[in-house]
Amino acid sequence: MSIPASRPSVFGPEYVRAIAPYIAGRPISEVAREYGLDESKIVKLASNENPLGMPPSARAAMLKELDDLGRYPDSNGFVLKGVLARKFDLPDTWFTLGNGSNDILEICAHALVEPGQGVVYAQYSFAVYALAAQEVGARAVEVPAQAYGHDLDGMLQAITPDTRLVFLANPNNPTGTFVPAAALEAFIAKVPSHVVVVLDEAYNEYLPVEDQYDAIAWVRKYPNLVVSRTLSKAYGLAGLRIGYAVAQPAMTDLLNRIRQPFNVNTMAQAAAVAAIGDTDFLQRSAALNAAGKAQLYAGFERLGLEYVPSYGNFVLVRVGEDEGAGARVNVALLKQGVIVRPVGNYGLPQWIRVSIGLPEENAACLAALEQALTGQSA
Amino acid sequence: MSIPASRPSVFGPEYVRAIAPYIAGRPISEVAREYGLDESKIVKLASNENPLGMPPSARAAMLKELDDLGRYPDSNGFVLKGVLARKFDLPDTWFTLGNGSNDILEICAHALVEPGQGVVYAQYSFAVYALAAQEVGARAVEVPAQAYGHDLDGMLQAITPDTRLVFLANPNNPTGTFVPAAALEAFIAKVPSHVVVVLDEAYNEYLPVEDQYDAIAWVRKYPNLVVSRTLSKAYGLAGLRIGYAVAQPAMTDLLNRIRQPFNVNTMAQAAAVAAIGDTDFLQRSAALNAAGKAQLYAGFERLGLEYVPSYGNFVLVRVGEDEGAGARVNVALLKQGVIVRPVGNYGLPQWIRVSIGLPEENAACLAALEQALTGQSA
Repeated sequence: MSIPASRPSVFGPEYVRAIAPYIAGRPISEVAREYGLDESKIVKLASNENPLGMPPSARAAMLKELDDLGRYPDSNGFVLKGVLARKFDLPDTWFTLGNGSNDILEICAHALVEPGQGVVYAQYSFAVYALAAQEVGARAVEVPAQAYGHDLDGMLQAITPDTRLVFLANPNNPTGTFVPAAALEAFIAKVPSHVVVVLDEAYNEYLPVEDQYDAIAWVRKYPNLVVSRTLSKAYGLAGLRIGYAVAQPAMTDLLNRIRQPFNVNTMAQAAAVAAIGDTDFLQRSAALNAAGKAQLYAGFERLGLEYVPSYGNFVLVRVGEDEGAGARVNVALLKQGVIVRPVGNYGLPQWIRVSIGLPEENAACLAALEQALTGQSA
Repeated sequence: MSIPASRPSVFGPEYVRAIAPYIAGRPISEVAREYGLDESKIVKLASNENPLGMPPSARAAMLKELDDLGRYPDSNGFVLKGVLARKFDLPDTWFTLGNGSNDILEICAHALVEPGQGVVYAQYSFAVYALAAQEVGARAVEVPAQAYGHDLDGMLQAITPDTRLVFLANPNNPTGTFVPAAALEAFIAKVPSHVVVVLDEAYNEYLPVEDQYDAIAWVRKYPNLVVSRTLSKAYGLAGLRIGYAVAQPAMTDLLNRIRQPFNVNTMAQAAAVAAIGDTDFLQRSAALNAAGKAQLYAGFERLGLEYVPSYGNFVLVRVGEDEGAGARVNVALLKQGVIVRPVGNYGLPQWIRVSIGLPEENAACLAALEQALTGQSA
């Protein structure tokens, strides 16, 4: 094997070469390899996955597709869009399917922004907003957070004539903060009509009943609004990659010009059709999450740790006062077989983000955290 | 349901609004709905799929993954890249995984080309090259074909200081033409070092032994070469979406900055690992294809139809002398339950592209074609 000496890439636009790739939650198998641990004993609370796994209804739907995978997927997602159309009482011309909502976010950037134009998003919001902006050579404007949440007035003020896109997560990841419906619609109404708002509702299904709102009604009203949803969280299908956008037909048509024709594979489409109809699974997921959140809050309080009250399926918790705290505690947890997410790359080096798991997973995480912080197990 | 009146989109760069989306082969279910046909009687020879379907080894591998799909896929594709690394005797830093090779082609455009820079490809080559160029606002240069194949000298002459990318398919789709290894390497050696050649080898596995060549050896030699492969054709996994790129580490690093972190889903990764090791399935696929190609050639000759000798798993055949011939024959075939690909959008309105199927599928296609052309069945 002869391999040329490594040489720096001279290819590609400077804005692409400057990208620092997304840091994913570490897979269980990888942590097991690195720390010499038994995979079955590892607790992964790092990627906001559903601790119930995927719905059994989705598994059954996939089994039926298992013999026809030599064929291309349906490029237009006829059956899946039909399910979405009935769910939201809208024609199928309002939906764009994505290979996860990550794909939706990137499709929006590619479809709407030229190099040098502006993209606005909040400090401490999802890392993919910055990446999507960088990929298209946009001028990225990160608006400082207020109490770890979005400063909507600040975001409005950051919009200029060259702004094309605003990314806004509600609830927000990784902080778990929430903007109530009235404030959110007031914001959307004030955004100039040349700017598209991508409202990322990846964690929407975890909202308590009293906080739920109907963003789809806003989509009917605002031609410059795109609502992004995913089946990777409450629907339990992270491994399959399905997300979708809801927007008016003209916008949807534009997004579909950028969408790769076979971006959502056959298994993912089949699983999504089943999962969307499985309201029982969704309710169980939300109830489990509410109980687990209370469990983590109580544990953090017992340990004297500050946390940000969360509207998602994860909690941001401050594990020390120094800039190395998050990274240090992360490694101490890894050694005990608990994978959480350090958020230093979000500018939150004192914090870690803990996904809400099964009761025994939450307990294991809290015990490992106590051990990491005090040298004593619970 | 209140829906605003449709209004033209005023969003997005002009080069995005100008995109005409990719036209996929029509799914069996869609044709059955439209023509009132029984799905089980439809013959689909429209998308260069493997008529054997997927390898049983891949099905078995997927069954093992069916319970862990609530977790995100491995973003780095550790196991799959390990299999590729062993297959090609290269470190895993030489591989980029794609959601089909369509994803690889688009990643290359996004990673390498700014708006206004040049992308070169041949007339009658894969439609996604033009789409990928349009998506990034590139100056697309389509070089006229020679005898339905690539004019390599013409492509070299089309390269200018602002050219960043050359897409080159070998064998070519939809024409099936082939550039022998010596001519191809001479071309690559002459391409200036500021231009990246993406050599799309989607149909590589169908090459007769005497025409096979080792493009990976060229990747070791040329830092500006990217070889793209897919598992959608000979490997029979079109429904799962897996492709990959082989390139030197600096180039691979650049491509991975653009790659979506979870672009290849868990089922696809598992199936690919199994399929790549299944050399028996690959040999059966190639042998079936060679026999089916001879069958189609003989049928076309009997009908007095001109065809382009093919190195892929499809044959381009001229079904009439007038500009409406391809579209007309396509509809006549659809009515008989045979789906092929009209190629008017490729500038080949007199032709259709017929994928090579099982012996009985090829026979059904030929009979339907005779009926369409002469009004008489065989």
